[in-house]
Amino acid sequence: AGQMRSRGKSLKAKDGKLPFCAMGVSSVIHPKNPHVPTMHFNYRYFEIEEADGTKQWWFGGGTDLTPTYLNEEDAVHFHKTLKEACDKHGLKLYPKYKKWCDDYFYIKHRGERRGIGGIFFDDVDSPSKEEVFQFVKSCAKAVVPCYIPIVKRHCHDSFTPEEKLWQQLRRGRYVEFNLVYDRGTKFGLLTPGSRIESILMSLPLTARWEYMHTPPESSKEAEILEVLRNPKDWVH
Amino acid sequence: AGQMRSRGKSLKAKDGKLPFCAMGVSSVIHPKNPHVPTMHFNYRYFEIEEADGTKQWWFGGGTDLTPTYLNEEDAVHFHKTLKEACDKHGLKLYPKYKKWCDDYFYIKHRGERRGIGGIFFDDVDSPSKEEVFQFVKSCAKAVVPCYIPIVKRHCHDSFTPEEKLWQQLRRGRYVEFNLVYDRGTKFGLLTPGSRIESILMSLPLTARWEYMHTPPESSKEAEILEVLRNPKDWVH
Repeated sequence: AGQMRSRGKSLKAKDGKLPFCAMGVSSVIHPKNPHVPTMHFNYRYFEIEEADGTKQWWFGGGTDLTPTYLNEEDAVHFHKTLKEACDKHGLKLYPKYKKWCDDYFYIKHRGERRGIGGIFFDDVDSPSKEEVFQFVKSCAKAVVPCYIPIVKRHCHDSFTPEEKLWQQLRRGRYVEFNLVYDRGTKFGLLTPGSRIESILMSLPLTARWEYMHTPPESSKEAEILEVLRNPKDWVH
Repeated sequence: AGQMRSRGKSLKAKDGKLPFCAMGVSSVIHPKNPHVPTMHFNYRYFEIEEADGTKQWWFGGGTDLTPTYLNEEDAVHFHKTLKEACDKHGLKLYPKYKKWCDDYFYIKHRGERRGIGGIFFDDVDSPSKEEVFQFVKSCAKAVVPCYIPIVKRHCHDSFTPEEKLWQQLRRGRYVEFNLVYDRGTKFGLLTPGSRIESILMSLPLTARWEYMHTPPESSKEAEILEVLRNPKDWVH
């Protein structure tokens, strides 16, 4: 469990053991229609008891969006809604956690992010448990207003087989991120007796890999790739 | 490169660097027809120069089969052909490398092997470079007679949508193994300037994940799962 602290604070173990208690809620939605983006959120709480009886606790989590095609209006709506949820608890939170999200969901071997980000944070244990809990509740409450308007706007959009194919290739990247980099997935796979089906529920129903697939310049496919390579600020 | 030695021999680095030279040939075939198994082989040669000028070299590699459905005749043919290639160079090789293959291609979080095995070895540097090279050549020459007769036997078999679906779920497991456990893939993803498209060419064109998918008892799907959970000896 010590590995789950991203700050890498040293924790005093008792007989090599570090009793912990973890709870969280996660959801990933991979829509069929390539014009409706994938959305993921996870909010979690950890508690660790050190050898000397000290209890450490922290919250972590985030909400992020993974579109197959870029829609600027959707991106702005998504980030703006998250920013509003954060701003109630301090104006420094959104910029910090927006950047953390871009850094975290980085597929290093591709030089791309998994999606257009959102917010992500870990190890948050100040100013107080009550205040952090209020902040996390605000984030969780923002999930529906972040995402559902985007679903409603696009769920009846028609799409071509080529658009479906590009969605499948992007889902391959999603699988690459989750299996190679995601700390939550790795932690789950390493935890003895963990529930594999719950951990891997984040994977899409289907995914695709093609050797040397490169979208043509100035295509809609190249447009989203550009944003995944160089994240943008969607709200100021 | 030091990580690539499975024995974990300690290597003397010069200024934290360990100059190395690696070469290999890999191939993975993921057929469309679920009655034709996936086949993978890789044979490779490593050379490392230690700080004191000592050169270390070793060969590694293997050939393994990943069927969607169990066909005992195919399994026996595949393993028998590999055994014959090994036996020319010593009778202890096949049993040792067959077991190494079962141990290596283990998807720990699923409690399953990736396929029905074959042979796998690494760090082989005795009795002499010439003798190991002859052995590796025998293994490489066995690839075609191992696999092509199986392809010919099944490439015109008809298949149902349900069989195709099971193949896609098995390909999901193949992706899990390669991205989470395969040392070659991890080594490649970590090597600066490595060619990602070459490393990830081992992934299938398409794969599928379904929450809590469990084949019915005594089905053909349950039959292959049983063998993936408890590897069998195919030749004696």
